[in-house]
Amino acid sequence: MSAATILVTGGAGYVGSHSVVQLLTQGFKVVVVDNLVNASQECLKRVEEITGKEVISIPVDLCDKDELDNVFTKYKINCVLHFAALKAVGESVSMPLNYYRNNVGGSITLLEVMKAHNVKKMVYSSSATVYGTPQKLPLTEDHPTGLGCTNPYGKSKHFVEEILKDLVKSDDAWSVISLRYFNPVGAHESGKIGEDPKGIPNNIMPYIAQVAVGRRKDLKVFGNDYNTPDGTGVRDYVHIQDLAMGHVAALTKILTPNFSGWKVYNLGTGSGLSVLQLVKAFEVASGQKVPYEIVGRRPGDIDASYADVSLAKKELCWEATKDVLDMCRDTWKWQSTNPNGYQVSK
Amino acid sequence: MSAATILVTGGAGYVGSHSVVQLLTQGFKVVVVDNLVNASQECLKRVEEITGKEVISIPVDLCDKDELDNVFTKYKINCVLHFAALKAVGESVSMPLNYYRNNVGGSITLLEVMKAHNVKKMVYSSSATVYGTPQKLPLTEDHPTGLGCTNPYGKSKHFVEEILKDLVKSDDAWSVISLRYFNPVGAHESGKIGEDPKGIPNNIMPYIAQVAVGRRKDLKVFGNDYNTPDGTGVRDYVHIQDLAMGHVAALTKILTPNFSGWKVYNLGTGSGLSVLQLVKAFEVASGQKVPYEIVGRRPGDIDASYADVSLAKKELCWEATKDVLDMCRDTWKWQSTNPNGYQVSK
Repeated sequence: MSAATILVTGGAGYVGSHSVVQLLTQGFKVVVVDNLVNASQECLKRVEEITGKEVISIPVDLCDKDELDNVFTKYKINCVLHFAALKAVGESVSMPLNYYRNNVGGSITLLEVMKAHNVKKMVYSSSATVYGTPQKLPLTEDHPTGLGCTNPYGKSKHFVEEILKDLVKSDDAWSVISLRYFNPVGAHESGKIGEDPKGIPNNIMPYIAQVAVGRRKDLKVFGNDYNTPDGTGVRDYVHIQDLAMGHVAALTKILTPNFSGWKVYNLGTGSGLSVLQLVKAFEVASGQKVPYEIVGRRPGDIDASYADVSLAKKELCWEATKDVLDMCRDTWKWQSTNPNGYQVSK
Repeated sequence: MSAATILVTGGAGYVGSHSVVQLLTQGFKVVVVDNLVNASQECLKRVEEITGKEVISIPVDLCDKDELDNVFTKYKINCVLHFAALKAVGESVSMPLNYYRNNVGGSITLLEVMKAHNVKKMVYSSSATVYGTPQKLPLTEDHPTGLGCTNPYGKSKHFVEEILKDLVKSDDAWSVISLRYFNPVGAHESGKIGEDPKGIPNNIMPYIAQVAVGRRKDLKVFGNDYNTPDGTGVRDYVHIQDLAMGHVAALTKILTPNFSGWKVYNLGTGSGLSVLQLVKAFEVASGQKVPYEIVGRRPGDIDASYADVSLAKKELCWEATKDVLDMCRDTWKWQSTNPNGYQVSK
């Protein structure tokens, strides 16, 4: 039997590219579609360097139904890994239509094209943000979703989950696994690929890394009066390589002949780390000082969030294997050898 | 000052057409866009007969961005009344992608085009279905939404409300009023326009009317073991003419120079009526027998739902003026003089 062909939307992005490396390593054929608005073709070259394998990459926007249709006509796709989305929370508040167009509209178009080509298997890139403010910790997959989503980014992830759930309910030929990421950080151990945000990073780890490498003066810590041991926010950071392996595990499950329906899994380590703990760990792993300044809270931020990861362990045989020092060391390797990310000519 | 020009999406549909009659009567200029998948051009001819005024009508699907853009280029639109949507709950469960594409995707496209043309006023056609299962009655506008929406139709209405809310939050040049309808019934008193569902009616009033006119054998009453006085479901039926006047009231408010932001109003009578009460009223108003059969509950149906209408009364100076006998009498006039709806050639 020939290897399954996986369409990876947003495959040139952060989580997408690391997952593509794992897919190629495990022998899957990969077709990447990416509009490259927040990603770089250089990233996919690096993926080919790491794996020694070819990545078929097509610059398509998911909202372009005809172009997407051509991709499905040209390649016999077995399953879609759907990463493509805009993901900056703050930007989503100021440009909500862009987020709903790309994340929700783009997903609807993708699903329509999949349906037209009878491709009915998807692993969806969701987020712990769909839980809103946790009613209890750790967060289990049956925690209510959508209620406390305060920004269009989070809502768009929730809306697409609901659309997928309804789709699976309407036709049992569909199989969808939604993976709710906690806080992805780190980089491939080669240091060749990593997170490369445009502009000011929205997430803490690339911010820390840019401070450590001298691109930014100091880290702004948003609030130290949260209800946590040291007052700074607590999150469940998970290594990007573990996350990539989580996708392989989900894909393996979804390609099992007897699998069908709708499943959701948390992908995290299961334990929380405060901002200051992360900063300290980064200093140890990198040998760099990371000066920081405590500033006011950001609206919408919560005290703490971390996953119950028992379901993924039980049903996907997956668990995170890398600790915070791995996360910091690999981030630092990527950042220090690529101070300006993929923008090599700078 | 010349009259405002109102773009009415779905203006050939049931609520849309009755609203267009009121708009024309009040002197507004009206441009209708409708894809006519669930509506008839004949309806708009009747609107012209009733009002003696011309309706500009363009057969455009909201998902067709270029065509929609042309409409905004051709006409100087002041405000949009956005009715266009698929609305059959059962169908939405079996064809979720169609509902998300048309209701959510179509709304996003419409908003993008409005934004491009700097038209930032909308009255949105929402539904009491966004409340899900009522936590208390009567339903006030601050009741949580989205939580108990069990079908794609209801979710699509909720999603679009969230998108609109986020849009208004991002840019205070936007003004949006969302009108949450309870159960629209009745017809224009002329009997020339009314509800004309294709296939088996999803809603009770057209079903009753089709039984009374002999198109269907008997009414199926879905459950008589609900927690209501006579065991059948209780709903807040509101006359379509009252609803149309509610839109004029909302439009008047939104065109006030100092109005901006996001507002939501319930449109109902404020009191509930059981299925059997409605059947009896219809028999009285029409002089026809309406045989019925009690059958099992429909999944997702709730005991009772009715509106608190004080906010619309206070802020829109609107309240329902017509009672259940008006609703039944006008429905019967429409149905008995148009037994096959707009399909005149049958």
